[in-house]
Amino acid sequence: MSDNAGKANRRGRPGYDLGRLLDVTVRVFNERGYEGTSMEDLSQRLGITKSAIYYHVSSKDELLRLSVNRALDALFAVIEEDASRTGRAIDRLEHVVRRSVEVLVAELPFVTLLLRVRGNTKVERQALARRREFDRIVSELVEQAEAEGSIRPDVDPALTSRLLFGMVNSIIEWYRPSRGLRAEQIADAVTKIAFDGLRHERDRDLVE
Amino acid sequence: MSDNAGKANRRGRPGYDLGRLLDVTVRVFNERGYEGTSMEDLSQRLGITKSAIYYHVSSKDELLRLSVNRALDALFAVIEEDASRTGRAIDRLEHVVRRSVEVLVAELPFVTLLLRVRGNTKVERQALARRREFDRIVSELVEQAEAEGSIRPDVDPALTSRLLFGMVNSIIEWYRPSRGLRAEQIADAVTKIAFDGLRHERDRDLVE
Repeated sequence: MSDNAGKANRRGRPGYDLGRLLDVTVRVFNERGYEGTSMEDLSQRLGITKSAIYYHVSSKDELLRLSVNRALDALFAVIEEDASRTGRAIDRLEHVVRRSVEVLVAELPFVTLLLRVRGNTKVERQALARRREFDRIVSELVEQAEAEGSIRPDVDPALTSRLLFGMVNSIIEWYRPSRGLRAEQIADAVTKIAFDGLRHERDRDLVE
Repeated sequence: MSDNAGKANRRGRPGYDLGRLLDVTVRVFNERGYEGTSMEDLSQRLGITKSAIYYHVSSKDELLRLSVNRALDALFAVIEEDASRTGRAIDRLEHVVRRSVEVLVAELPFVTLLLRVRGNTKVERQALARRREFDRIVSELVEQAEAEGSIRPDVDPALTSRLLFGMVNSIIEWYRPSRGLRAEQIADAVTKIAFDGLRHERDRDLVE
């Protein structure tokens, strides 16, 4: 990706490097749907010719692949962070949840596109396979946290990871950057609710 | 709805009453998108003529309205239940969350259609308005629960209700009736996570 962008810059080509081209492309995909978007639509929205787009990518399919991989690479990078790999499983899980919220907010249009992929093409099926791999890693973290006794033993790990990331992923449905809510505030709310629960301390003895 | 169905039965008309017609229609809408579905598509899938469809409804738009209202009516009926209206706010909130999970599972294709509505037509905008009204009621319940001191005071009510229902609504993304998970099990998991938190009791003193 940086190679292509570098080439464009070296040639002094006006307009878009690949990163900025994807920024616009992903917005059009989200508005019209990937299948409902033609290279002609993209050319018009970008204000450049189709051959200028083909300078960067070989096909619409490659634009989709680069776009969903931008989201997936960012999520998998979270899993590679030190705090996701060392320490107690509950802390690693909390770190992954918190950083995933930050990735969703930072890469909102790319994650939105990713989460709408239904598996109609090879690129889409590859994206779904990577999503399942991410889910599996989260689910294993939940299992490890149960095994170490740091989270309640009476919830199913797979169901828990689905619900946890259901909460996280809902961000694409309601988050509007313009409203001034910061990623950190959302991450705080998610971890407070999911790890410590909404119920007030002084109310707990009544139910447990 | 039952009137029309009654009429059809009295006439001995073979095939569909309105309820069964909607069951099929909503599946086609979910597969192809509302805009991507023609009355001809529906006629083929139902195996009846277009005029047999027009016996029940005046337009495709009316099919959409009836379909999203089936989901919305079921959700608003939850809010009217005694346990949603009397008692402590936290218990009312928990009841609404639990019963909403049950509605999502019972009316999965209808809620799926509802949650994908984007506001492109008058019917869609009316559906979005009713969704916002539902969100407002949940948000008020969170506020009342904070005011009565039964839930933690350090989470924003609007953000909390979005995250809570983000978790609930994620059901449409991953739930498959065939896998044998019952609504009650999902509702238990949601309320355990959201109200009491994942963190194990004996782990709490370390962090609070």
